[in-house]
Amino acid sequence: MDLEISPLARPFPDMPAIDGVTLRVARARYKEWDRADLTYAELAEDTALAGVFTRNVCCSTEVEMGRESVAKGRARALIVNAGNSNAFTGYRGREAVEQITGQVAEELGCSPEEVLVSSTGVIGVPLPQDKAREGVSAALASEPCTWEEATAAIGTTDTFTKGATATAMIGETKVMLNGIIKGSGMIAPDMATMLGYIFTDAAVEPAFLQECLSAANTRTYSCITVDSDTSTSDTVLAFATGKAGNATLTSFGDPGADAFMAALEEVCRELAQLVVRDGEGASKFISVSVSGAESNDSARRVGLAIGNSPLVKTAIAGGDANWGRVVMAVGKAGEPADRDTLSIAFGGHWAAKNGLPVKDYDEGPVAKHLEGDEVDIAVDLGIGTGHATVWTCDLTHGYISINADYRS
Amino acid sequence: MDLEISPLARPFPDMPAIDGVTLRVARARYKEWDRADLTYAELAEDTALAGVFTRNVCCSTEVEMGRESVAKGRARALIVNAGNSNAFTGYRGREAVEQITGQVAEELGCSPEEVLVSSTGVIGVPLPQDKAREGVSAALASEPCTWEEATAAIGTTDTFTKGATATAMIGETKVMLNGIIKGSGMIAPDMATMLGYIFTDAAVEPAFLQECLSAANTRTYSCITVDSDTSTSDTVLAFATGKAGNATLTSFGDPGADAFMAALEEVCRELAQLVVRDGEGASKFISVSVSGAESNDSARRVGLAIGNSPLVKTAIAGGDANWGRVVMAVGKAGEPADRDTLSIAFGGHWAAKNGLPVKDYDEGPVAKHLEGDEVDIAVDLGIGTGHATVWTCDLTHGYISINADYRS
Repeated sequence: MDLEISPLARPFPDMPAIDGVTLRVARARYKEWDRADLTYAELAEDTALAGVFTRNVCCSTEVEMGRESVAKGRARALIVNAGNSNAFTGYRGREAVEQITGQVAEELGCSPEEVLVSSTGVIGVPLPQDKAREGVSAALASEPCTWEEATAAIGTTDTFTKGATATAMIGETKVMLNGIIKGSGMIAPDMATMLGYIFTDAAVEPAFLQECLSAANTRTYSCITVDSDTSTSDTVLAFATGKAGNATLTSFGDPGADAFMAALEEVCRELAQLVVRDGEGASKFISVSVSGAESNDSARRVGLAIGNSPLVKTAIAGGDANWGRVVMAVGKAGEPADRDTLSIAFGGHWAAKNGLPVKDYDEGPVAKHLEGDEVDIAVDLGIGTGHATVWTCDLTHGYISINADYRS
Repeated sequence: MDLEISPLARPFPDMPAIDGVTLRVARARYKEWDRADLTYAELAEDTALAGVFTRNVCCSTEVEMGRESVAKGRARALIVNAGNSNAFTGYRGREAVEQITGQVAEELGCSPEEVLVSSTGVIGVPLPQDKAREGVSAALASEPCTWEEATAAIGTTDTFTKGATATAMIGETKVMLNGIIKGSGMIAPDMATMLGYIFTDAAVEPAFLQECLSAANTRTYSCITVDSDTSTSDTVLAFATGKAGNATLTSFGDPGADAFMAALEEVCRELAQLVVRDGEGASKFISVSVSGAESNDSARRVGLAIGNSPLVKTAIAGGDANWGRVVMAVGKAGEPADRDTLSIAFGGHWAAKNGLPVKDYDEGPVAKHLEGDEVDIAVDLGIGTGHATVWTCDLTHGYISINADYRS
């Protein structure tokens, strides 16, 4: 099935080179296709590593081994396989990953734990070791490629390539951050995944890089949903080569640490939103802002209950300002809330305030707002100061077509 | 929008009279329609009452007041309004309910708390007090009606009437149980609800009736899902008139208590499954049996994670035995599980055992099973003895059409 490019797609940005990062791709032919499907990123010595991973209990070997590498905090290379997720493949899947880390480690003269591997695609089929070995060899021998070529090679059923870039000043030093990502839901017929990678030339201690990435994750990747289904392989890794030459960041007390954190979060937010923009069948990009909650975490969970509600998402698809469904979703979230202090707005127009429909509510401007492809829903719980914003897309016939109308 | 009768519909059963229960309906005209939309059930004096209600924080006044009545354990009447849920309507909604309970209580010479009220339909519009008053008067003055007429009157966008009946022997006394229900998801454009009522002539102490209903609820209503969205008004009430003349049941130690519990659960299970059979857009009825879990509760939550997964439901709609999606749903449930002891079967055919695809797995018989309109998924977690069965339906274009393709 050929997928049309999402109507919410964004062009791939101009991405600068990141000192200490070299990208290469190769054709491992994990599937019957003629495209690059193995990506290799070589990283400077002493590159700091941080990562966040799926909480799915049935996670892949790649996720298990990635966690071990992140605990040590250093990386020399990243390999991404597209077309086979290697999940639910037992010891044979693990052997395939160990073969790759060993092969790359030997080439670079580093520890196998400094080689990160991600895989995305069909589940239950061990990654073929012969294809992986030849693919890695071909990548090692190939010419460096562009950021967009590498991004295309990590994609599976993505309908467009997704990247983001930012800079930050650390003291007198300008540092660069590039991020790339793949994902658009758990796409049929395979077990697809969200894989994201951020590369920076900044010098950052691994523990602090992890602190920044975890904080950004809470406010970006953890705030998006396409279809409420959590992959077995979701992974976001951050690599800091240190080649920019800034004084190494170790905590938020360091000059420039706040700027670095802001730039990292900006890249993460853009990448996360791009995944939503490629959500299966998406025709509208929806921002759900929740305020007045007991805590920020509580606000995020309420936002996700709204963003995951099929009834809210189908209402938006139909251009229907059905705030009753938003009430329902708030109520089912299981978070502290009070029906009688609840207020709801679409595109800045309040439909309900303090538990009652707004008097003389005019649906006209709201209906006009819902005709666009960017929809804002604001919910004020009226019980605290916690707030969060969640991003999602609408639920359309396109989602059903992609996921039900053909066999794997 | 006229909805076609669900392909999974079942005929309304022959329902015997229940001594101590008289049913009447009237046209309150809560919406612009020409059909009975107010149902009145008069109950014998000293009828025992039990109830389970939505856990949605934004629940309706009817649910709040119903909880108070259930705490007292006695009922003399039930009024069900269809076409207006009276939810999210503040003090004016409460006034409307109090008017109804007062009007009926005066007629029967009972306490207003012995009059139960349910409402289902559009949200955010207070139930019109004049229509309610005239409707109740008309019902009080009307001839008794049949079980099917009463069931039709509580429905909103249901595509067929849903009832179930059973008997049990308590000592030498045969007791009858009739149940009726409405619901098929949270249907656009209104905030629809699941409302269920069970009537029996058995003599049962209210506290024990509540114990039985709560236990049945855990294994029936709490085990179904159409679209993962929880209504603000879900209500199931049980009424025991005592007219059968059996020795009053007070605990599971009493003769016949187990038989009564079994009959009650049978009625609840049938009603719950009928709601799934009328699930919006449903083309297949799916049973998800989970075994080997840490506890029964844990098994139910894993089953619901599978039954709520849009990717599992679209796969079944497409006739795709995509067990990778089942692995994903098990893993995201947040319950104790172990990838390497997980086994999955469709229609009795194992696709994966102990964390690995089954060798020489033949998809032929599985594909044939998935062509039918009754699909069985079995999941063994392999870590304990907890088990549960969850019922759901597939996710099809019909769901999107019902919920997105027209304005409220």
